[in-house]
Amino acid sequence: MLPVPMTLVRNIAAEALGTAMLLAIVVGSGIMGQRLAAGNDAIALLGNTIATGAGLIVLIHMFAPVSGAHFNPGVTMVFLLRGETAPRTALLYVAAQFGGAVIGVWAAHTMFAEPVWQISTNLRDGWGQGFAEAIASFGLIGTILTTQRSRPDFTPTAVGLYITAAYWFTASTSFANPAVTVARSLTDSFAGIAASSVPLFVISQIVGAVIGLGMFGWLIMEKPTHA
Amino acid sequence: MLPVPMTLVRNIAAEALGTAMLLAIVVGSGIMGQRLAAGNDAIALLGNTIATGAGLIVLIHMFAPVSGAHFNPGVTMVFLLRGETAPRTALLYVAAQFGGAVIGVWAAHTMFAEPVWQISTNLRDGWGQGFAEAIASFGLIGTILTTQRSRPDFTPTAVGLYITAAYWFTASTSFANPAVTVARSLTDSFAGIAASSVPLFVISQIVGAVIGLGMFGWLIMEKPTHA
Amino acid sequence: MLPVPMTLVRNIAAEALGTAMLLAIVVGSGIMGQRLAAGNDAIALLGNTIATGAGLIVLIHMFAPVSGAHFNPGVTMVFLLRGETAPRTALLYVAAQFGGAVIGVWAAHTMFAEPVWQISTNLRDGWGQGFAEAIASFGLIGTILTTQRSRPDFTPTAVGLYITAAYWFTASTSFANPAVTVARSLTDSFAGIAASSVPLFVISQIVGAVIGLGMFGWLIMEKPTHA
Amino acid sequence: MLPVPMTLVRNIAAEALGTAMLLAIVVGSGIMGQRLAAGNDAIALLGNTIATGAGLIVLIHMFAPVSGAHFNPGVTMVFLLRGETAPRTALLYVAAQFGGAVIGVWAAHTMFAEPVWQISTNLRDGWGQGFAEAIASFGLIGTILTTQRSRPDFTPTAVGLYITAAYWFTASTSFANPAVTVARSLTDSFAGIAASSVPLFVISQIVGAVIGLGMFGWLIMEKPTHA
Repeated sequence: MLPVPMTLVRNIAAEALGTAMLLAIVVGSGIMGQRLAAGNDAIALLGNTIATGAGLIVLIHMFAPVSGAHFNPGVTMVFLLRGETAPRTALLYVAAQFGGAVIGVWAAHTMFAEPVWQISTNLRDGWGQGFAEAIASFGLIGTILTTQRSRPDFTPTAVGLYITAAYWFTASTSFANPAVTVARSLTDSFAGIAASSVPLFVISQIVGAVIGLGMFGWLIMEKPTHA
Repeated sequence: MLPVPMTLVRNIAAEALGTAMLLAIVVGSGIMGQRLAAGNDAIALLGNTIATGAGLIVLIHMFAPVSGAHFNPGVTMVFLLRGETAPRTALLYVAAQFGGAVIGVWAAHTMFAEPVWQISTNLRDGWGQGFAEAIASFGLIGTILTTQRSRPDFTPTAVGLYITAAYWFTASTSFANPAVTVARSLTDSFAGIAASSVPLFVISQIVGAVIGLGMFGWLIMEKPTHA
Repeated sequence: MLPVPMTLVRNIAAEALGTAMLLAIVVGSGIMGQRLAAGNDAIALLGNTIATGAGLIVLIHMFAPVSGAHFNPGVTMVFLLRGETAPRTALLYVAAQFGGAVIGVWAAHTMFAEPVWQISTNLRDGWGQGFAEAIASFGLIGTILTTQRSRPDFTPTAVGLYITAAYWFTASTSFANPAVTVARSLTDSFAGIAASSVPLFVISQIVGAVIGLGMFGWLIMEKPTHA
Repeated sequence: MLPVPMTLVRNIAAEALGTAMLLAIVVGSGIMGQRLAAGNDAIALLGNTIATGAGLIVLIHMFAPVSGAHFNPGVTMVFLLRGETAPRTALLYVAAQFGGAVIGVWAAHTMFAEPVWQISTNLRDGWGQGFAEAIASFGLIGTILTTQRSRPDFTPTAVGLYITAAYWFTASTSFANPAVTVARSLTDSFAGIAASSVPLFVISQIVGAVIGLGMFGWLIMEKPTHA
């Protein structure tokens, strides 16, 4: 038996289940949009956006009291670097996030009666895409760090609204999450990303998260100066 | 006369009226979407989604202080199993939910000047649909149980946002409610479901709800570990 | 000079300005939707809905601390019948609402460089439309009375979300407001209503509001029984 | 070295970064909408609206505790006139807003792999457009002043929802911000404005803001009379 206390087991289960539900939402709503919109990608992205934004707000509210609701190795890394998450916990969280993410993709495929095992052919290359992912992660870390400090009850809603905006304002539709990125290489649908594009995305996400940690860590160093 | 105290009469009236308004929203906005979108089902579903999500948030805020705003035999069953609703109350709630749901469908038909009595011909079959309904109910029960414990003032909004997401990420557009499912067999419009597909939906919903009760009951057993 | 204290002057100004802004939003976003959507009424209604719902939430937050933010003779009538608004105040509110509403329509026309003076030719007839307006008003009064009692800080958002849903689930797109209805007879655009259809709408709205007052007044007679 | 204390440096950095992120959102989501919607401007505006509204809510929550989150020389001017912002701070804020706005436009171009340097050819002329910008600014100042007084925790959300509505109900799609207007002259995309149209917009915005300051300053002079 692993010498893991029951509380930590619950935390890890929450990270795995929450990330699985997140991917089921992202990939499932992408398939729904693609099928119904019949080639009109703007309308497919609208449905994908509304489902992901609303779903994220709910998921973070659901799981935050248990595990903190990271669902994202980049977020866990930032909390590790800030000393707010222990190294062992961080490692277990990241493993749970990757495992949960893949299961979520497969659950979406099963619901829509598609082959469970798929490989994306959706190339997302070019420096613009990398820059977009860095900005997406930078903003996500900023959203979390600033609202956690001044209005922690609003953080779950802030993250959902941020991703709602980022699906449209970043050229990459804002993956902003290494576990999500890897898992989305396993779906050949609207939300997919070819395996060859994954490294650019993941590296950009980590760079953006680290810059965000530095920038926003500095900005919120003082007590709020405005009520 | 039934020996029912006035408070319980109000509770039952709230369940019936709230479920009726829910169905009027679901079916009415489906007809509106279908008529205006003229064959573009993605846009029809967008309108249907926004109306249902916004409407649910309002309805639960309206009726929760009176009856708890279940509107759903699956939810009432979960509260019965958790010992939070008495058996007699549960039985009366479920009857009110089914009765209200049917009246809501007929109200929608009357508003749109359609025949009141209709039978849906919209087949929604296959294991993917059943799996989707189980996931939809599992997530709905999780949304309610987790937020009721940590942020009960947010539960009505969480349920509305969850259904907003679930209309898009589940292959079945997330009925997630046996009373809603049966009532929607009585409309031959966008939101309808053929009677022959109803049993698969209802059984899947109950299975998903019971699994959700077990899983999320375990997850929230401890006091929140994250502020 | 009218012997009206300055506080009441402010209240009346708030009702007039708020109702004017509401009509500018309803009619202006209707024109925008009509122009951009080029015949696709579902997309035009989506834009109209999002603007009206979001705008109403803001307007009620803005003006509620001053005047209560009725913006609606039906709502003022209900508060008069409940003894929460004095008869003289009610009369002045209703006059301000009608005057403000017409100015709002003309402001929208001016922004969009259309003739200020217009007469709608948009017939909205039939018993289904009347029934829809009665239901729309019934639900609006229910939204206000129930949330005012249990969660008054949420009432402005509840009203905005209710109208968001009602634009789609009622066959009439939910005018639910006699001042809005009369003013919308003065625009020959997406949001217009022919003068000959106005009486059916206004009577139905009053009937629905009175039934709502009775029904929801009874439902919330007791203290909330559910936390 | 400027004798600027570190707190003020953080405030100015917050204004610059926040305004940059706002412009990246406005211009980036405009490009995304334009590319995906392929000529359907209503759908492009829907995506642009949802991204801007959701993004603004998040940005103001993020930066308000640091700098007040003006992001807008018109807003800074109003706070200067009300004596709530010191003249030197106001000057530095406005410079940071213009600088940040331009950088945000260039960041959007870089993400979408477009030429960084662009000049808009999008004429937005006529008195209707000017009137629309005056109304847009009038309403924005009203939103801020009224909610700051009665529900300051809601102001960030109110501003985001107001702009969501104003994108649709004003004929100009509501720039309502001189820094945003100037910066948007540097993008030849959906959100652009030709340099020759900028003066009309900026003057109208200032006029609308000053009228709003007078009107709403008078309205909220008393303590709230309604709970």
